[in-house]
Amino acid sequence: MKLTRKPLQVNSVIEKLWEYRQPGKTELVSIENTTGRFLGEAIIAKSDVPAFDKSPYDGFAIRAEDTIQASQEHSIEFEVIDQIGAGTITQKKVQQFQAIRIMTGTQIPFGCDAVIMIELVKEISRDGKSFIQLKRRMKTGENISFQGEDIKAETLLVKKGTKMNPGIQSLLATFGYHQVAVMQKPKIGVLATGDELLDVNEPLAPGRIRDSNSYMVMEQIKRSGAEAIYYGRIADSFAATYAAINKAISEVDMLITIGGVSVGDFDYMPEVYEALGAEILCNKMAMRPGSVTTIANYAGKLLYGLSGNPSACYVGFELYTRPMIRHLLGSDKPFAKKVKAILDTDFPKVNPFTRFVRSKLYAHETKIYVSPIGMDKSNIIYSLAFANSLLILPGGTRGYTKGMEVEVLLLEDQEGSEAY
Amino acid sequence: MKLTRKPLQVNSVIEKLWEYRQPGKTELVSIENTTGRFLGEAIIAKSDVPAFDKSPYDGFAIRAEDTIQASQEHSIEFEVIDQIGAGTITQKKVQQFQAIRIMTGTQIPFGCDAVIMIELVKEISRDGKSFIQLKRRMKTGENISFQGEDIKAETLLVKKGTKMNPGIQSLLATFGYHQVAVMQKPKIGVLATGDELLDVNEPLAPGRIRDSNSYMVMEQIKRSGAEAIYYGRIADSFAATYAAINKAISEVDMLITIGGVSVGDFDYMPEVYEALGAEILCNKMAMRPGSVTTIANYAGKLLYGLSGNPSACYVGFELYTRPMIRHLLGSDKPFAKKVKAILDTDFPKVNPFTRFVRSKLYAHETKIYVSPIGMDKSNIIYSLAFANSLLILPGGTRGYTKGMEVEVLLLEDQEGSEAY
Repeated sequence: MKLTRKPLQVNSVIEKLWEYRQPGKTELVSIENTTGRFLGEAIIAKSDVPAFDKSPYDGFAIRAEDTIQASQEHSIEFEVIDQIGAGTITQKKVQQFQAIRIMTGTQIPFGCDAVIMIELVKEISRDGKSFIQLKRRMKTGENISFQGEDIKAETLLVKKGTKMNPGIQSLLATFGYHQVAVMQKPKIGVLATGDELLDVNEPLAPGRIRDSNSYMVMEQIKRSGAEAIYYGRIADSFAATYAAINKAISEVDMLITIGGVSVGDFDYMPEVYEALGAEILCNKMAMRPGSVTTIANYAGKLLYGLSGNPSACYVGFELYTRPMIRHLLGSDKPFAKKVKAILDTDFPKVNPFTRFVRSKLYAHETKIYVSPIGMDKSNIIYSLAFANSLLILPGGTRGYTKGMEVEVLLLEDQEGSEAY
Repeated sequence: MKLTRKPLQVNSVIEKLWEYRQPGKTELVSIENTTGRFLGEAIIAKSDVPAFDKSPYDGFAIRAEDTIQASQEHSIEFEVIDQIGAGTITQKKVQQFQAIRIMTGTQIPFGCDAVIMIELVKEISRDGKSFIQLKRRMKTGENISFQGEDIKAETLLVKKGTKMNPGIQSLLATFGYHQVAVMQKPKIGVLATGDELLDVNEPLAPGRIRDSNSYMVMEQIKRSGAEAIYYGRIADSFAATYAAINKAISEVDMLITIGGVSVGDFDYMPEVYEALGAEILCNKMAMRPGSVTTIANYAGKLLYGLSGNPSACYVGFELYTRPMIRHLLGSDKPFAKKVKAILDTDFPKVNPFTRFVRSKLYAHETKIYVSPIGMDKSNIIYSLAFANSLLILPGGTRGYTKGMEVEVLLLEDQEGSEAY
């Protein structure tokens, strides 16, 4: 079966895929197990911060009105009637010219309305009692962190779909989220096709290569926040391919097959899609590499047929699979972040199709530059290890020259964008 | 005990710490378990890539010399004597005007030295045999990917200390690294001090707050690539603090305590350090926040006394603990990456000490901008959730204004730099 293939633009493909997006599911996990996960609920302040009026310094809590007469010439004396550390409260109530010694973070004792910093007083003992002397007036509320001044209860702090980080951990702990809803990790199956493939632990044999694309794609899946499930290699036959896909698709949210999407005699994938009754959404992209990427809908699940060429496979995943994963992870910015950069070298090769060139984005002074990598045949295979971005070169009849402004998709970014 | 505290510059602190760095250890893990790990060995090409001469296209392998007479006017006919898919080899050897049909990735049959792309021939059948007709000359070596042309065996591809990514996974699989040495994760202990602290699952109580710094720091530890071990909260007492530190330090590579490093009456940490016989390397930094960060050497292990103030705690970890972790993870660029950016707002507050302000770095057009965040009291506590960088504002007698060029440390970057 030879399919008619009409090339689609990247954004037309995305538009088609978008119709098949599903809402992600959530699960409760304990705060200790949230690393790398995406919030499944918005983080709301469950109390005021501070939760009580407190002292930002080590010092003495007093009544400001008692300091009205204080000045450089006239010091006022307070009797220190108690001493409390952070986490403790006092039952004592200050009367006129009485003070309570308090530590940073301590709740302001009832009846006090100002805190004198420890450095501003002279401490003395007399008759077994402690006193402090103060030479300045204090205002009501001075040196007090008031309840709710940092955050008011019920404030929305972090929205659903945000990836965990140290600052969010701190908020979860502050508000007692010992359990928190996170997005379930989508399960993405990976199946490699091709009789030439060997397992990683097999020795090389004539004409054969190890299956490296599966490991690459599984790491891309994990980097995007999902769970990768490896279904191994399948032989280049219709029956084996059909059976493997049919089994795998029932166990995952999306399935990726690698290889078999060209028009060669051993490329059974289109036939298998037809036999499965999968609806082919696109099988030709107006892009390089990855033009033969095929995407189908099978019983509401997306079936990605990525190319067996490593670069095409990599780009196909990043452009078309990752956004669907990020959507399932609750993100409202599921697409790779796009930035503008200055091309740092000539790129004379002309191509009618838009190219996505693996590249290295870097900062120099306050400007952003991008360098295509892996253009030489000698490092094409290992340039992906050093790529942090995909340089977008729209198709046309001219090459690109050093100093031109270009657009670049970030590969390691967590922030994302709303569209390509 | 009141210590004399002499403020040290950030780089002087680093210099002192550097004397106590240890070489990281490695362990073998299977390729499936390398996500998030740092390479403990350099990745070396174990064979040529390609490992054999192969065809980059679907086509017909022939002897170039047989095409000498071919032209638009004169087509040459070849008998197709075999057909092989990728991963298989043929025992047949072409004679004059014979061809073997081969698929992309297939090993070039013995005796052939060129591949004709399938699109360039006319295929015909006659007397139960297959033939192709060709109307152009082929050069010796045309359309052949030669053994070793991508990578020569023994090439160093990725160096030790590099963090795993999809491109590296692909290389590991290509060269049969089914097991690979990765750096052991340093074990970093975390202990919080302060009677005011509650566990995350405890309800708020008068004067008390939940321990949020520990969770924040544990996430920072994990982000840096190490393992976090939580030793819980300890009471504000000399005995409890001493016992807890003494136990924990024997089980970890470095120990972080949070709180207790100020000069308040309940700050036992300096006393505990003395009792342990720990050598204090620094206890006052010429920086804001985090000036009271204390670092000691105890039996060859670093003991970090971070401030109980969340911002100070966060910055203290990033500046002083993270580089030591990254060193143990084999990195030769263990420090946070520093870039230059344009300040996008006025920052009038003057401070004699260098400030590290949590900030948001962003790209606009081809330029890099930075925005301090959390400057308003109302969002100081949750700004860390949105910070991706620390803006460095050197101390002095003037503030900073919009449009100035400033330096910024990246918090999420994996590349690092050799020094601050």
